[in-house]
Amino acid sequence: IESSNSQHQQLAEELIERCLPFSGKSFRIGITGVPGVGKSTFIEALGTYLIEEKNKKVAVLAIDPSSTKTKGSILGDKTRMNKLSVNDNAFIRPSPSSGALGGVAKATRETIILCEAAGYDTILIETVGVGQSETEVKSMVDFFLLLMLAGAGDELQGIKRGIMEIADVLIINKADGSNIDSANLAQQEYKNAIHLFPPNDNGWLPKVGSCSSTENKGISDTWEIIESYFKLTQSNNSFYTNRKLQAKFWLENTINNSIKELFYANKKIQTKIQELEMMVMSGVISPFKAARELLSIFKK
Amino acid sequence: IESSNSQHQQLAEELIERCLPFSGKSFRIGITGVPGVGKSTFIEALGTYLIEEKNKKVAVLAIDPSSTKTKGSILGDKTRMNKLSVNDNAFIRPSPSSGALGGVAKATRETIILCEAAGYDTILIETVGVGQSETEVKSMVDFFLLLMLAGAGDELQGIKRGIMEIADVLIINKADGSNIDSANLAQQEYKNAIHLFPPNDNGWLPKVGSCSSTENKGISDTWEIIESYFKLTQSNNSFYTNRKLQAKFWLENTINNSIKELFYANKKIQTKIQELEMMVMSGVISPFKAARELLSIFKK
Repeated sequence: IESSNSQHQQLAEELIERCLPFSGKSFRIGITGVPGVGKSTFIEALGTYLIEEKNKKVAVLAIDPSSTKTKGSILGDKTRMNKLSVNDNAFIRPSPSSGALGGVAKATRETIILCEAAGYDTILIETVGVGQSETEVKSMVDFFLLLMLAGAGDELQGIKRGIMEIADVLIINKADGSNIDSANLAQQEYKNAIHLFPPNDNGWLPKVGSCSSTENKGISDTWEIIESYFKLTQSNNSFYTNRKLQAKFWLENTINNSIKELFYANKKIQTKIQELEMMVMSGVISPFKAARELLSIFKK
Repeated sequence: IESSNSQHQQLAEELIERCLPFSGKSFRIGITGVPGVGKSTFIEALGTYLIEEKNKKVAVLAIDPSSTKTKGSILGDKTRMNKLSVNDNAFIRPSPSSGALGGVAKATRETIILCEAAGYDTILIETVGVGQSETEVKSMVDFFLLLMLAGAGDELQGIKRGIMEIADVLIINKADGSNIDSANLAQQEYKNAIHLFPPNDNGWLPKVGSCSSTENKGISDTWEIIESYFKLTQSNNSFYTNRKLQAKFWLENTINNSIKELFYANKKIQTKIQELEMMVMSGVISPFKAARELLSIFKK
């Protein structure tokens, strides 16, 4: 499904449709945080805990907007998750490294379906806290976990504004050794900040917690928070409503992307658009007139 | 320009293009806050101050997403701004009350051009703090002011999450009478919350202030904050860069809306889409396959 070969794509579509009836039964959890916050170590600790203590099958996927430029991946090689990568009940898949962000997100959403059909009941989707990736991830997960570090008051540095807003839980990582006091302080600060916001539409009040992935502390507490979220949203039905709205969102999203592709792939549009864009940016013509000119070219 | 008559629209487009060279020289200021926060009274106080003390010409526009449903307008009749509405140097225009939000935003953006060509040097754009309107307003203003009330800790109740994030200044209104202590407290709370976030890309650190629109206190201080923003962003050039990016955004936005309109206005699409949407939401087919089916209909 990551191949851009059109024959492969046809096969992939067929495969997805056949897997669809067996999908949907997992918990899909998004995990984000700036580079260096310890996402891999946290996922290794959480994933291992879920497999060993909770009898789960865990798939780890990644969405990395930078990978489309560097052809790299957040996860890099699997050696960053030593224990998890050799566990029979874990599947680790780095971010697809080609195509636009829209394509990466599409491939990831399709991979979720494959993993679920293959019996994975917990899907962890890793992303970095920059760019548009959180919005894309938010639209394919049930729960969003934001990993942070205690620090000099500028913990949010480098994180796009608004991420704190979409997080269902905020976990201070590396709460160990000499870090414990500042982790507790940060936890209190974030609790104060978070109480300024109203509860989510689904009745969930975002939580703040802390953990040490290396000392394996706070991992089970974190999972309890996540489980209580699933209990709440399943009992008030918002879990299922959200899934349906996400499917609708993805239909609209795919339609919009496809018609945009069709438009911008048009040779006559391509020869005209740069000239008009320059004219719009320098205020020579209005965006509305420029758009209308392009559309009349497209209609022909 | 608010008419949906196609002949009027052609004339409007011609008019906009002719006004374009005379536009762009104003400060465009977005003002938002929940109903009851006192937006009209604040705008009356600020507008009158700017005309009487600063020799400005002030245009007041409004974007109200609810107006497209109720055919009403935030501003209602002009009598809510007694003083300003009769001032020769003020122009007040309620929200266009027909068409989708996209259409309202387009008409407002065009009205900005007309007002600037007519010599108004300060454009105040009022919006309510719900729905998508702030994003639309953000894309057409240079500065965003969020009006709030001191209260029982749930000041943000009813305000869409994320608004605080896009505000360049947060003003506690009604800081008068028995409200003064709680206004001061709220101001301090918001200062604490706001310092958790990094400065904007343009180097501006969002500010917190307070005012009393009825007692006319804090209005000149608020204006000083706004002026210091314009000095900073003009000196580091981000003011002009932002304007260019906004023009580019509006070109892309108009193109995307136009091609979506073209797609959804297609009769064959209309007969097929509801059925496919239901199938996608109940998990019978994937969003990707449904989108592809629709697109092949569109291409034909």
